[in-house]
Amino acid sequence: MKGYVNNIKPYDVLSHDIWGMDQAEKEKCLKLDWNESTIPPSPNVYNRLKDLAQRGDFYQWYPCTHNLKLITDISRYMNVDKKNIQVFASSDVLQEYVVRCWIKREDNVLIVWPTYDNFRATAEFAGANIYYSLTQDLRFDARQLQKDIESSKPQMVYICNPNNPTGEQIDKNIIEDIVKKNKSVLFLIDEAYAEFSGKTVADLVDKYENLLVSRTFSKAFALANFRIGYLISSDSNIEMVSRVRNAKNITTFSQEAAIAALEDLEYMESHVRDVKIAREFFIGELKSVPNILDVYPSETNFVLIRLKSAGLKQKFLCFMKENNIYIRDLRQNVLLEHFVRITIGSLEQMKKVSKIIKEFCSLYHEGSSI
Amino acid sequence: MKGYVNNIKPYDVLSHDIWGMDQAEKEKCLKLDWNESTIPPSPNVYNRLKDLAQRGDFYQWYPCTHNLKLITDISRYMNVDKKNIQVFASSDVLQEYVVRCWIKREDNVLIVWPTYDNFRATAEFAGANIYYSLTQDLRFDARQLQKDIESSKPQMVYICNPNNPTGEQIDKNIIEDIVKKNKSVLFLIDEAYAEFSGKTVADLVDKYENLLVSRTFSKAFALANFRIGYLISSDSNIEMVSRVRNAKNITTFSQEAAIAALEDLEYMESHVRDVKIAREFFIGELKSVPNILDVYPSETNFVLIRLKSAGLKQKFLCFMKENNIYIRDLRQNVLLEHFVRITIGSLEQMKKVSKIIKEFCSLYHEGSSI
Repeated sequence: MKGYVNNIKPYDVLSHDIWGMDQAEKEKCLKLDWNESTIPPSPNVYNRLKDLAQRGDFYQWYPCTHNLKLITDISRYMNVDKKNIQVFASSDVLQEYVVRCWIKREDNVLIVWPTYDNFRATAEFAGANIYYSLTQDLRFDARQLQKDIESSKPQMVYICNPNNPTGEQIDKNIIEDIVKKNKSVLFLIDEAYAEFSGKTVADLVDKYENLLVSRTFSKAFALANFRIGYLISSDSNIEMVSRVRNAKNITTFSQEAAIAALEDLEYMESHVRDVKIAREFFIGELKSVPNILDVYPSETNFVLIRLKSAGLKQKFLCFMKENNIYIRDLRQNVLLEHFVRITIGSLEQMKKVSKIIKEFCSLYHEGSSI
Repeated sequence: MKGYVNNIKPYDVLSHDIWGMDQAEKEKCLKLDWNESTIPPSPNVYNRLKDLAQRGDFYQWYPCTHNLKLITDISRYMNVDKKNIQVFASSDVLQEYVVRCWIKREDNVLIVWPTYDNFRATAEFAGANIYYSLTQDLRFDARQLQKDIESSKPQMVYICNPNNPTGEQIDKNIIEDIVKKNKSVLFLIDEAYAEFSGKTVADLVDKYENLLVSRTFSKAFALANFRIGYLISSDSNIEMVSRVRNAKNITTFSQEAAIAALEDLEYMESHVRDVKIAREFFIGELKSVPNILDVYPSETNFVLIRLKSAGLKQKFLCFMKENNIYIRDLRQNVLLEHFVRITIGSLEQMKKVSKIIKEFCSLYHEGSSI
C-alpha cells in the first residue's frame, strides 16, 4: 500500500438518507442537500429510457465507445468544436482522469477554497501536495490567488465557478487574466453550476492550452443519477485525456438520457428561470427574519447560510429534518462550522421552506435560550 | 503533462461496428468479438428496468452510495462476507482504484501474458514498469511465474483466471501456492469468466492478505452495458479501496440490473450450461476440418483459434464479416499475429458459425493459393 494513502481524508459523501426510505416517506421529503434538481428531467428523457427499457436488445453488449452522438450534441449546445470535447462517466471521473494525466506524486495543487471537495481528495490520493487559496470573508480575491500561485508554484489550480458552496461567480475577464498570466499552470475550471449563472469560459480553450473546463448533466439537466460529465479543452489536451480514458464506461442508458435532455433545452432553461426566481424570493424572505442567520448572494441553484452559533445550527438542522427537509451541514469544513447549504427548488417549494425557517426563527429568536 | 504518459499505448478497445448499424443490419449480425453474452439477461432484469423507467422519480438524484442491497446479494451469491466485498462501476474501474491504492510510479508490475490488456494500460499510466510472464506455447507455467516474480520483484501480479484469450484455467492449489509463497506481492486474480469454469479463489481472501479477486456482471450475467464489477479481498484491503472509491458512480439502473440478475441465478446457470455444450460441439467441429486452423481448449465462453498463416487469417476475418459474424482479431499482440478469438453463444448459433467456418476451410484448404 502507498504509505500516504492511509492518512488521507476521503471525499465524504455524507448521509444519503433518502435511499433508505420507503416510497411513502420519500414523497414527504424535500431533498435540498446535494444541489440536485428538485424536479425531474425533461419528459423527453423518460420517453427515451422507456423505449430503451422496452427494447433492451443491447443489455448484454458493452456500450458504444465512441460517444459520437453525445459529443456532437454537446458541441452544438456549447458552441464548441467536437475536437475540444470528451465525455466521462461523471465529472468526478473526469477529475480522476485529469489527475492521472497531469498530476504526479509531490506535485503541488492549489485549490480556491472553500469548495467542492472531490478534486482535493482525488489529487491527494495521487500523492499531490494540496494548498488552499482562501479569504476570510469567503469572497474570491484575484490578487490573493495570484500571490498563492506564486508562493505555492502549483502544477494545477482548481476553481469551481460559480463556486460551491459560496454561490459566487468569478468574472470571465478575471479568469482569463489569471490563466494568461500563468501559462505554466494548468487551470481546471469546474462549471457544474454554469447553467444557472449563464456564464462560461469554454470559448477560451482554443486560446489557452492551460485551460480545462469541466461541465456536468447532474445539476440544471436533472440527470445526477446517470453520471455524465464532459471536459472542454484544447484538442491536444482532449487527445491526451482520451488516451487514458476508459471508453467503455458510459452506459447506453446514461448516454441516451443526456442526448434526450439536450434535445429539450427549453425544459432545462425554464427550470433554470424558475430556480432563479425562487432563489431571489427565498433570499429576500430570509433577510426579513430575526437576526439569527445570514444568507449569501448566489448565482447557482443553492444558497449558503450562516447561523449565529454552532449550537443554533444543530437545532436548525434538526428542526429542518423534523419537517422532512434535508439540507447540507457544512461541519466537515473547519471554516464553515456555522454554515449550512440549501438547494433551491421551485418557488412553491421555497415558499414552504422559508415558512418553516421562519417558524424556527420565531422559536429561537436572538436572545432566547439556545 | 507527465512525460511518460505520451509514449504509452492506450488499452485499445478496437472497432465496435455494431453500434454504427441500423436495427435491420444489427439483427443480421452475430457479435462474437467481445466475449459478451449472445443472449439477453434474465427477464427479471427487463421487468426491473421497465419499472424503473416507468417510475423514474430518482433520475435527478445521485444514486444510493452505500450499494448495500447489491453487496448483500453478492455476498449470498459468492458465499463471502459483506465486509470482504466492494462494488465498482465496472471491473475496469475496479482496476483503476486498485492501482491508485497500491501502485506508485516506478513500481514493478508482472502480468501473466498474453491476457486482457486493460490492467497493463492502467498500471502503465500510473508510471509502473511492466514485466510479462509468458511461455512459448501459451500455457501457464507456475515455475516460470515463480522465476519471473523472483527476477522482476513486482509490487503486484495480474493473473486472469480463466485467462482471456487462451481460455485456460489455473488450478486453485497452484494459485494458492504462489500467493502463499510470495507474501510481499499483491496478486490480482481477474475472474471475469469464472462462472464458466465454476472455480474461484474468492474463499481464500480471509487467509491471504495479498490476494485480490475481481469479478464482473458483464459476461455470464449478460450485463456488459451496465458496467458492474466487484472486488473480493480481506476486510482491510476492502476498507482501503473504499477510502479511494467514488461512491456515487454506480447508477441506479446499473445497481438494480445487477440485483435483478442475482435474483434469477437459474437463468445465468442455464446460459452457462448452454455455452459449455455449444463450446464443446464447436471445438469438435473445428477439429474435423482440413488442417488450416488449431483450436485451443477453453473453460470460458470463447475459444482461441490459430490460423496457419497471417494472410489466411486476414481472409478468414473478411469471410466471417461478409457473413455478418464479428470475431476478435488479436493482431495487436505480437505473439498472436495468427490468432483470432471467437465468443461462444448458443448451440444453434455455433452450428451456424461452424458451418460458415467449414465453408471457408473448403475454399482455402491447405495447399490452395492464398
